[in-house]
Amino acid sequence: MSDSTTNTLNTWVEVSKNSDFTIYNLPFGVFKNKRLSPRTGIAIGDKIVDLSVLDQEGFFSDMFLPEGIFLNESLNKLISLGKVQTKKIRERVQNLLLADNEKLRDHSARGKVMVNRKEAEMLLPVEIGDYTDFYSSMEHATNVGKIFRDPENALLPNWKHMPVGYHGRSSSIIPSGTPIYRPKGQFKTPEMDLPGFGPSKKLDFELEVAFITGKSTKQGDSVSTADAEDYIFGFVLFNDWSARDIQAWEYVPLGPFLGKNFASSISPWVVTLEALEHFKVGGPVQEPEVLPYLRCEESHSFDINLEVYIQPDGKKASKVSSSNYKNMYWNVAQQLAHQTINGCNINVGDMMSSGTISGEESGSYGSMLELSWNGKEKIKLEEGEERAFIEDGDTVIMKGFAEKDGVRIGFGEVKTKVLPAK
Amino acid sequence: MSDSTTNTLNTWVEVSKNSDFTIYNLPFGVFKNKRLSPRTGIAIGDKIVDLSVLDQEGFFSDMFLPEGIFLNESLNKLISLGKVQTKKIRERVQNLLLADNEKLRDHSARGKVMVNRKEAEMLLPVEIGDYTDFYSSMEHATNVGKIFRDPENALLPNWKHMPVGYHGRSSSIIPSGTPIYRPKGQFKTPEMDLPGFGPSKKLDFELEVAFITGKSTKQGDSVSTADAEDYIFGFVLFNDWSARDIQAWEYVPLGPFLGKNFASSISPWVVTLEALEHFKVGGPVQEPEVLPYLRCEESHSFDINLEVYIQPDGKKASKVSSSNYKNMYWNVAQQLAHQTINGCNINVGDMMSSGTISGEESGSYGSMLELSWNGKEKIKLEEGEERAFIEDGDTVIMKGFAEKDGVRIGFGEVKTKVLPAK
Repeated sequence: MSDSTTNTLNTWVEVSKNSDFTIYNLPFGVFKNKRLSPRTGIAIGDKIVDLSVLDQEGFFSDMFLPEGIFLNESLNKLISLGKVQTKKIRERVQNLLLADNEKLRDHSARGKVMVNRKEAEMLLPVEIGDYTDFYSSMEHATNVGKIFRDPENALLPNWKHMPVGYHGRSSSIIPSGTPIYRPKGQFKTPEMDLPGFGPSKKLDFELEVAFITGKSTKQGDSVSTADAEDYIFGFVLFNDWSARDIQAWEYVPLGPFLGKNFASSISPWVVTLEALEHFKVGGPVQEPEVLPYLRCEESHSFDINLEVYIQPDGKKASKVSSSNYKNMYWNVAQQLAHQTINGCNINVGDMMSSGTISGEESGSYGSMLELSWNGKEKIKLEEGEERAFIEDGDTVIMKGFAEKDGVRIGFGEVKTKVLPAK
Repeated sequence: MSDSTTNTLNTWVEVSKNSDFTIYNLPFGVFKNKRLSPRTGIAIGDKIVDLSVLDQEGFFSDMFLPEGIFLNESLNKLISLGKVQTKKIRERVQNLLLADNEKLRDHSARGKVMVNRKEAEMLLPVEIGDYTDFYSSMEHATNVGKIFRDPENALLPNWKHMPVGYHGRSSSIIPSGTPIYRPKGQFKTPEMDLPGFGPSKKLDFELEVAFITGKSTKQGDSVSTADAEDYIFGFVLFNDWSARDIQAWEYVPLGPFLGKNFASSISPWVVTLEALEHFKVGGPVQEPEVLPYLRCEESHSFDINLEVYIQPDGKKASKVSSSNYKNMYWNVAQQLAHQTINGCNINVGDMMSSGTISGEESGSYGSMLELSWNGKEKIKLEEGEERAFIEDGDTVIMKGFAEKDGVRIGFGEVKTKVLPAK
């Protein structure tokens, strides 16, 4: 299909000029509404293509799909069919949506197939097995090193030799729209003799992009950087909530735990790797040279604009960060090769995230920790508001989109309101 | 029932004096054999009680259990019924096995119900959602601090204020009997200018005990130490394989990752909390006093003997460590309270492990890192063998059992052979 070309595609669906969900995108998600039980959809404009109805109407009859494959509560079984099948399904839908294709456009079931996005509740798209959080933006790792450790030796010695990462909590990954409670926990600043306890005073977002794996490996096997993209189904925006005061006190020597695992929010539409092909860009020069298992023949970096907004309760949203997914020292192929080089097995539906994506300028930092430099400089918002960290009642919104040669695709948003501690 | 008493129970099943699987134990597991598909069993002596056959024969008909509840590939659905039900099921089996109860003893289906343990293949008992590894033995944390960091400040400032822990990898948790491949990875000693790459030269076991959660919580909620045991279904032995050279280079600042996530082995029989009640002992004095959410009214420590053996290929097994689960500064109720104090939600089938359980004496250390003091002093084995770390072809065996007032219960073993790197 047209994913890596700039051929103009027109669709009979009304799609506004700034829609993230163009005919070039067609991300997969799981939705339900008042009438419909959970099912697989593909987003276009303000509509969702209900794949289960398309299937019932025989539009996939030549593909011999398992019965009810689009009526599951997650995409895992669909993704498990393999990329050959999921690509075919997406291409079939793209074809059916083309302006001059009358098969669905003029079909009597069209009204049943096309569901209003506004009336749908989006569910967690994937049952996530294991979740890994990398730390792959050099600017972020440097900023955190300066704030939490030593400004003179901010980047630790291993950082340029491997995509440093750690395992996070899967149970608390929630879809956009689900509010979170401010976490409670221990904290201790150098001035305190004993640790204190209470609701976090330094609740923060982390602007990240995560990929969902689409293929499994066996224990003992590794995935090469050359093969890595075969194992990547698609991408979501990821807000990896953090409590900086809890994190700072707990994280030595085993890494972040309660400072992170209370909640992580993802955008509900999984944008496929195929849709993002067109937005590949060259990656950074890696100096010193990396070990052979981390070297790449091809580019695996993507030019995706990322934005963060804070919306205080009852007020306007203010943009607080503009970053880009290409601001990554380590790419997705290197992350996957590293994750599996020791024989660690992956399953369909694992999630691996970028870590906070910060650019070089202060307006491109991907967390309040960096934007306010650990609370030292408050960020000005609209309507006279200002923030060092996230306050109760605030909604944090992340957006992501790519534009090139008149083609636009986007992630929609991940939007989360913070409720007071329980 | 009789779990917390010393009333002598006799069974019509032949159980040898040193069996781990006495009438007092009755752990749950999932097994299959050449004839039988995966199903739930309870171990007694050299037999497995096939619960699915008991169910078919009507022995649970008054309990209104979901159809096929004992024919799943994991215990998750059974555990999800709740402790009231699973306790009743175990008590029913215990009752049926009593010497003077003729119902099963003299039943025509007895032969079909009682399966030979030798002929059964034990599967992973639980589909593990999230896995947390704590670090709750003070002796282990002190030893590791001395070896990896600073002998003068071995225990970090947070350690006595919280059960430090981190999230591990669930996908690579395997049952006893599954061999593992030596992991490959990066390592760098202070003498090296650049990191090297290859099979780990410091492959290690970690002697741990893990608990399986039996009840879920909602995001935002916390479990108190007083309620914690309601959320614990049972316990397994846990060998948390580690590659010390990979770990030492990668672990700052986000904690262990590839040095741990290639494999973790568990014993296949889940010993219930009820069975272990009889072996509770007082815990250590905690000084300084812990924060209120970590205080306990009752004891949650268990006197369970733990042993590690190394068996070189074709040779005798040698015992290299004798430790005890009571060697824990932080108990299971404190671990669960800490895990959820920030609102992190848990699901049925999560696993939370102790961390390496080392005692005070060198013969009670729970890892080769400590036993050989990072390779400096080799451990002597039988038949002229010696080890600093684990070599290819070695089998590591862990055993665990409790004995008191003539009552013995045990975990069986977790046994894993190490194959050369792939």
